[in-house]
Amino acid sequence: MTTLGIVKRNITRADKAAVDKLGRFGVATVHEAMGRVGLMQPYMRPIYSGALLSGTAVTVLLHPGDNWMMHVVAEQIQPGDVVIAALSADNCDGFFGDLLATSFMARGAKALIIDAGVRDVRELTAMGFPVWSKGISAKGTIKSTLGSVNIPVVCAGVSVNPGDAMVADDDGVVVVPAEWAQKVADAAEAREANEGEKRAKLAAGVFGLDMYNMREPLAKAGLKYID
Amino acid sequence: MTTLGIVKRNITRADKAAVDKLGRFGVATVHEAMGRVGLMQPYMRPIYSGALLSGTAVTVLLHPGDNWMMHVVAEQIQPGDVVIAALSADNCDGFFGDLLATSFMARGAKALIIDAGVRDVRELTAMGFPVWSKGISAKGTIKSTLGSVNIPVVCAGVSVNPGDAMVADDDGVVVVPAEWAQKVADAAEAREANEGEKRAKLAAGVFGLDMYNMREPLAKAGLKYID
Amino acid sequence: MTTLGIVKRNITRADKAAVDKLGRFGVATVHEAMGRVGLMQPYMRPIYSGALLSGTAVTVLLHPGDNWMMHVVAEQIQPGDVVIAALSADNCDGFFGDLLATSFMARGAKALIIDAGVRDVRELTAMGFPVWSKGISAKGTIKSTLGSVNIPVVCAGVSVNPGDAMVADDDGVVVVPAEWAQKVADAAEAREANEGEKRAKLAAGVFGLDMYNMREPLAKAGLKYID
Amino acid sequence: MTTLGIVKRNITRADKAAVDKLGRFGVATVHEAMGRVGLMQPYMRPIYSGALLSGTAVTVLLHPGDNWMMHVVAEQIQPGDVVIAALSADNCDGFFGDLLATSFMARGAKALIIDAGVRDVRELTAMGFPVWSKGISAKGTIKSTLGSVNIPVVCAGVSVNPGDAMVADDDGVVVVPAEWAQKVADAAEAREANEGEKRAKLAAGVFGLDMYNMREPLAKAGLKYID
Amino acid sequence: MTTLGIVKRNITRADKAAVDKLGRFGVATVHEAMGRVGLMQPYMRPIYSGALLSGTAVTVLLHPGDNWMMHVVAEQIQPGDVVIAALSADNCDGFFGDLLATSFMARGAKALIIDAGVRDVRELTAMGFPVWSKGISAKGTIKSTLGSVNIPVVCAGVSVNPGDAMVADDDGVVVVPAEWAQKVADAAEAREANEGEKRAKLAAGVFGLDMYNMREPLAKAGLKYID
Amino acid sequence: MTTLGIVKRNITRADKAAVDKLGRFGVATVHEAMGRVGLMQPYMRPIYSGALLSGTAVTVLLHPGDNWMMHVVAEQIQPGDVVIAALSADNCDGFFGDLLATSFMARGAKALIIDAGVRDVRELTAMGFPVWSKGISAKGTIKSTLGSVNIPVVCAGVSVNPGDAMVADDDGVVVVPAEWAQKVADAAEAREANEGEKRAKLAAGVFGLDMYNMREPLAKAGLKYID
Repeated sequence: MTTLGIVKRNITRADKAAVDKLGRFGVATVHEAMGRVGLMQPYMRPIYSGALLSGTAVTVLLHPGDNWMMHVVAEQIQPGDVVIAALSADNCDGFFGDLLATSFMARGAKALIIDAGVRDVRELTAMGFPVWSKGISAKGTIKSTLGSVNIPVVCAGVSVNPGDAMVADDDGVVVVPAEWAQKVADAAEAREANEGEKRAKLAAGVFGLDMYNMREPLAKAGLKYID
Repeated sequence: MTTLGIVKRNITRADKAAVDKLGRFGVATVHEAMGRVGLMQPYMRPIYSGALLSGTAVTVLLHPGDNWMMHVVAEQIQPGDVVIAALSADNCDGFFGDLLATSFMARGAKALIIDAGVRDVRELTAMGFPVWSKGISAKGTIKSTLGSVNIPVVCAGVSVNPGDAMVADDDGVVVVPAEWAQKVADAAEAREANEGEKRAKLAAGVFGLDMYNMREPLAKAGLKYID
Repeated sequence: MTTLGIVKRNITRADKAAVDKLGRFGVATVHEAMGRVGLMQPYMRPIYSGALLSGTAVTVLLHPGDNWMMHVVAEQIQPGDVVIAALSADNCDGFFGDLLATSFMARGAKALIIDAGVRDVRELTAMGFPVWSKGISAKGTIKSTLGSVNIPVVCAGVSVNPGDAMVADDDGVVVVPAEWAQKVADAAEAREANEGEKRAKLAAGVFGLDMYNMREPLAKAGLKYID
Repeated sequence: MTTLGIVKRNITRADKAAVDKLGRFGVATVHEAMGRVGLMQPYMRPIYSGALLSGTAVTVLLHPGDNWMMHVVAEQIQPGDVVIAALSADNCDGFFGDLLATSFMARGAKALIIDAGVRDVRELTAMGFPVWSKGISAKGTIKSTLGSVNIPVVCAGVSVNPGDAMVADDDGVVVVPAEWAQKVADAAEAREANEGEKRAKLAAGVFGLDMYNMREPLAKAGLKYID
Repeated sequence: MTTLGIVKRNITRADKAAVDKLGRFGVATVHEAMGRVGLMQPYMRPIYSGALLSGTAVTVLLHPGDNWMMHVVAEQIQPGDVVIAALSADNCDGFFGDLLATSFMARGAKALIIDAGVRDVRELTAMGFPVWSKGISAKGTIKSTLGSVNIPVVCAGVSVNPGDAMVADDDGVVVVPAEWAQKVADAAEAREANEGEKRAKLAAGVFGLDMYNMREPLAKAGLKYID
Repeated sequence: MTTLGIVKRNITRADKAAVDKLGRFGVATVHEAMGRVGLMQPYMRPIYSGALLSGTAVTVLLHPGDNWMMHVVAEQIQPGDVVIAALSADNCDGFFGDLLATSFMARGAKALIIDAGVRDVRELTAMGFPVWSKGISAKGTIKSTLGSVNIPVVCAGVSVNPGDAMVADDDGVVVVPAEWAQKVADAAEAREANEGEKRAKLAAGVFGLDMYNMREPLAKAGLKYID
């Protein structure tokens, strides 16, 4: 009856080419391309600015104050993966630091996305290992309780299945279901191509009001100009 | 590629007898019986104290500031259901008031659990329609954007599938997957029976230290008594 | 150049009959009737449940940790007034307790609405003096710095001018500009009349989908029903 | 070098008569009488309204997600004590429910004050066991890590030493150092006597401006009355 | 009776020379010079560090999850303006990204100050378009509901009138009413001149205690030195 | 009966060599070395990244909105000290800016750690004076009420005694009681030496599961691997 104490070794990862392609677009573009779903809560912030990446999810469910399963998930990482750490209850202790990051990097992990706290942020920044987290805390954790690895989890308000495509940047984190990865990547590409043209027009002084043909619907909705 | 704009009419609801049985226990007991998973974030609070209920989930996904789908979900309610309203992004407007409550009650709904705000709380209290929400706000919403009904949602940090068993009281809200409902109800019953005996002992002055045989493990862990 | 240190004695209060009429409707109804503006932030909560009232605003601007001007505003209260206390910066100390409440009641004040903390809530509840506040704190305040009385203020995110009509209940607080009071009261009345009929239909099992003719626009927007 | 894993059995409790006397006054009065120090953060709220009590502190230091020491502290409770539970890091799980409350009550505890979450609030309310807490959560805790009992702790932002006098009501919680208990009780008594007279004057319509002789200092500070 | 659906085209902007002069001082200095009013809530943070600017306000009122009026306000921008975006209710979606920024920059806008979320922060940073916001979110918004442009608004707790002078830096945002701009700029200049001298003294080891003649008032207030 | 209005001139500072040694390790390491106690709440954040320092505490207790005692504490600073500013109640005004920083630096202070707000962060950053604070606000404070200097305080949830060793970096702030400074520094050194070896192994691909011998206890706890 429980989903605790399980490590799933074989998971189906989203198509690598599709995931790589997703990494060329920002989170906002991917989120739009997918129909405005899949976005983690905006409290998830990067520990340093400027990172933009995509990867495939390996998931881990942790309990408050206990990071034992972080060592278990490390063994399940494959190159190109992003570790998604969910919590069974709200907690902001520092579940992850430079030693675990060293281990994750040795396995080929591209990032950690954790609905809790991290520590050693100066070292993590120097190592170039990006983390999106709920907070920063030096508070250490114990190794006492079983969670699970590679089960479906809810992280920062969004469902993540093992193998899903993840995209993260300064705007936050979005989850793309594995089976949608290619279509979303294509839609994002189309959207971005489209944006280039729009950007040029706007830079030239064209109004969005005209470019998007908004004047008529605005008037119809009752907008009044006064002096 | 999207899950928006869909209303699923036929869902498999958790076994009625099991759901009713779950309603005899509080959220804390059910949550323990299930292995400490499935609990919504503690920001979900009842609009009035003292309610305890169980029911089957019909789900609705809403967008910030838009409650159009609330009218769509009303039609999908069957007696004994609890409406679970999730949001595509953080928002605390008042998505629900006494008129919708009248409609939901007429359909046999037992409660609303919403990861957003509600209003008309004085009237809802008088009507005896319990709501667990993220907040209270008189701010109304528009009817402009499609969400979905009876798709899997994440509500207050927990995955809810249509038909899942819900238990709610003053301690919060817990989701019991439909297929676990009977087993969890049985486990809760066993747990509660067990608790009666423990309660009697503790009331008689027996220490938990002795009743749970904790003195030895505490000493082994290094606990020192000083004067 | 400053608005500090001023007490305006003569203010134009909203029409008494209109203000009284507004008090027959809840905050949600008034807020809707006014076009969904004027609502204070939802962190403003009543210290006890069940109060519903309207009144005319006398305003006071306070500084963090300093309630000196509360004594100054007391003298400007007329029967039927509600004191609106704004802060020059975020602070949640207890600016108001049972002594000031005694003074305000003696002057005919109907309530206090304060963007800060209050104390003596057990006594205030027993006295039946309703307060909407940002929080509860026993922390006292000093009497050292000048604020102002009856100047325009921003309280909990909304502009309040002296004399404006205030409506408050369990859903929160709404500000009705004095010059709109009669029209808003009339609009609220029309709205509520209208709601009675709707409520009866919904209670009889009519769907909002039909009552509001939503099926066609929903289908047009792309809503799909599946089994 | 550590303060963990220690249980101090003999502590010096504040004078019983002084503690009882403190319980006749509200938190706001005691806090004022002590010079506006010792107040816990205002996020500490009672699980039900109307309680007012005083008692002597027995302290316990807990770790996030772990309530093992709650059973250890139970044995150290004497009639008239209030248990003060501090956390080594921010956490809002449910550390305490009706079973522990039964045990604490059997020992003569008057209340629990905990800088974390509690559960079974419906049962605790029915039992009449008051709790001031940071929140309510059904999330259970493990029993794995040593904390300490009857060491000095910081609870909700305030230092508490074992044996200190605690006063709690709807306004919050205040800590009175054991050695100050009598003096603070006397000062609170004097203050309250004084308040009765003030209250009568204010109720009769006397302004605080006159009763406290504020008009001159206000004018000196530059207060201007305009029409 | 409503202020929605209005675009005011002609507004009186604060004197350009005064606004430019204000931009030479930081927010803290301007805020002090104005008598400690007009400061937005401190949750308003810049998306990147180091910006310091002044400009004239064009205002826009938006609804949760709806940025339609952002395109309407774009047309009202004149070189040197700062767009002030207020919300009718609390919401942190991403109302603004690189496309709108391109349009605003093409119109000569110097910054956006928005009581909600923004996205594309990496791009905005690269473009050098500063934004002060309540948060960062990739969540997009719809274009469905009318707000208004160039009406008085409350943004982050402060009243802003179209044409007011705005000053923003790493400390936050302050609003200077248009008619005060010159006087406040002069007062800020005087204050800053004064600060240079003080800074030199303090750097040379002079105590503020002596420089500000605080020893006597401190002793009078009862300050005691002990060893 | 009060601790207000006192300045203690002679305090015993932690051993300088021990304090300097502590400054070679990060907060997380020191916190672990001390047994996971003494960590300030994680809301304490540096105004700029990259600082790592240790020093001896001089303490000051302030009241909301009042920074008078900041000038009093300045005189008590000795080279190598860190000023620890506690508040008698929650407040986030800007108690400290570049002038006070100039004075503190002239006295040899290494940093300010304040459970409230600061301002002039651009200037403080340029001066290289690090501050850990609860927030940033341009809101100034008055000079009206007595607090104390060099009394024991609670700052951001932790007790600090004058003379204690402080360590602060991007992970937060930890307090090391003066009498433990040498032992904690030694323990931190041992821990860090140990970490170098571990880091090398993990970088070489050794799993924490093996390096820490976790496989057996995990299996014993019931961990199951599935495919």
